[in-house]
Amino acid sequence: MVNEFELIERFFSRPARSPTVVLGVGDDAALLLPTPGHLLVASVDMLVAERHFFTDVDPEALGHKALAVNLSDMAAMGATPRWALLAGALPASDPVWLAAFARGFYALADAHGVDLVGGDTTRGPLNLCVTLLGEVPAGQAITRAGAKVGDDIYVSGQLGDAALALAALTGRTALAGAALAACRTRLERPTPRIALGERLRGVATAMLDVSDGLTGDLGHIVDASNVGAAVDLASVPRSPALAAKLAGAERALALQCLLAGGDDYELCFTAPPAASARIVAIAAAIGVPLTRIGAIGAAGGLVVRDERGSPIAALPHAFDHFA
Amino acid sequence: MVNEFELIERFFSRPARSPTVVLGVGDDAALLLPTPGHLLVASVDMLVAERHFFTDVDPEALGHKALAVNLSDMAAMGATPRWALLAGALPASDPVWLAAFARGFYALADAHGVDLVGGDTTRGPLNLCVTLLGEVPAGQAITRAGAKVGDDIYVSGQLGDAALALAALTGRTALAGAALAACRTRLERPTPRIALGERLRGVATAMLDVSDGLTGDLGHIVDASNVGAAVDLASVPRSPALAAKLAGAERALALQCLLAGGDDYELCFTAPPAASARIVAIAAAIGVPLTRIGAIGAAGGLVVRDERGSPIAALPHAFDHFA
Repeated sequence: MVNEFELIERFFSRPARSPTVVLGVGDDAALLLPTPGHLLVASVDMLVAERHFFTDVDPEALGHKALAVNLSDMAAMGATPRWALLAGALPASDPVWLAAFARGFYALADAHGVDLVGGDTTRGPLNLCVTLLGEVPAGQAITRAGAKVGDDIYVSGQLGDAALALAALTGRTALAGAALAACRTRLERPTPRIALGERLRGVATAMLDVSDGLTGDLGHIVDASNVGAAVDLASVPRSPALAAKLAGAERALALQCLLAGGDDYELCFTAPPAASARIVAIAAAIGVPLTRIGAIGAAGGLVVRDERGSPIAALPHAFDHFA
Repeated sequence: MVNEFELIERFFSRPARSPTVVLGVGDDAALLLPTPGHLLVASVDMLVAERHFFTDVDPEALGHKALAVNLSDMAAMGATPRWALLAGALPASDPVWLAAFARGFYALADAHGVDLVGGDTTRGPLNLCVTLLGEVPAGQAITRAGAKVGDDIYVSGQLGDAALALAALTGRTALAGAALAACRTRLERPTPRIALGERLRGVATAMLDVSDGLTGDLGHIVDASNVGAAVDLASVPRSPALAAKLAGAERALALQCLLAGGDDYELCFTAPPAASARIVAIAAAIGVPLTRIGAIGAAGGLVVRDERGSPIAALPHAFDHFA
């Protein structure tokens, strides 16, 4: 066991790397140097044991994910992440667990040039709260409210595998070893789409990250932009494992994962048809598949058409922590 | 019961008041307009039920305190608070509890011109994590590292009453009704010293807030500034209730509260003797007592001298969440 100050000293007080960090961990607050001409972008996410992750999850993966979900929020605004603050309640201060957690956290932070500049530790039921601060050139942030009638709707990567992994890990379905491993990586080590978000400045008209499930999240764009949306199920990108279940006896489960599974952390965005060549070029440049899944229409909610073109009557619901 | 989105909508999506909030609650992240020529100041604090507060605490007081402890960190840097993010894990979404919590939070936020600009809610063991962002003119932040040999040491207000209230509430001592009420207000509704922190820019050489207890916190200034410190116990400001116990059979408990009791959220700062008249004027202007309790000396740790001038051999320890 290490005490609170030793804990911060040993695992979370690595010197900041960016010259924008005037004062990092170790005082009452961090002092940070904003970039002139930029807006500050701020988000927070809280991860609770047995709700967002299993208590026995690999702590290195948890360190990755705690930061990844916040990086994804930055990506969704088209922002560049800069500084993180980490608050954690821990049932005990286990140095082996903490070292692994810190390793996962810092590896992803380093990959994106993010400095950990502050935090708080306390004893309590396992809970991790990450605040991320980023920047975006003034006027170039991509909100949920800019979708226009006629815009195409895109998503990055593939959807549903994180939820499929969770279904397998909780015994609601079965996956073969290789498929389970692939899906589990998507659940436990999601890839925030920072480079994509940055490149979509001036291209996407509206954007968010798919954290609660496609239909629920796209519904936020529909509501905020006061438009409608039509999505073709057949075009929603999915893994072979999920595709196999969608074509078989587990179609309902697969549909739930694909349309309402959370934790994908892919970006969903809208853009005018005239931008399509530019979007193809961005996908090629960063090596992330971007798939057109539908189009924005006049106000009237969200419709998902199945493989035969019929609207799906009862769309699966996004996860609600208090439902 | 209300669901997650209704909960945010009903209680935590009041429109921002400051024009610096370009986009507040409701998107993937908030967009904020920094003040040119200022540094960004960032801190986070996590409050856990049964560790930082009793689960049955008045939720309005809890809303106040969750923000107050962070405002205190801003005050300790000489910063002006601007924007808050609130993440919470709640065992249930009880509208009556949430309305009271929000009332306490917003009342204190309004008093300091702070806008709530983002957050996250989830179900889980009760845990509140507040991130506060503020600003300070470049070059004017007051860190822990600037204390100089010969500086005077000051504290604001009185110390120890919050810890004394906790001792009474947990049956370790008894307090008469009026004294308990006064101490309990200090515990449950601490007053962050924002105006004081701002006015000490250019005056104080080092500063922090007394959140973990005077000797532990002053020890941080001593360490960061590479100096020593001598404190006169007789001059440490205390309430009549605490003074009575210090003079009687409960001296050990009173000493613990006064020197190592956490949760006071007063400011402790150092300043050269030449600044004393200015400090008296600041105290008068804002109506907060400022008391000189000792002086900074050459490196050699922290000494507290008792009423007879003898060093106290075993200083009470600050609270350690993992001790």
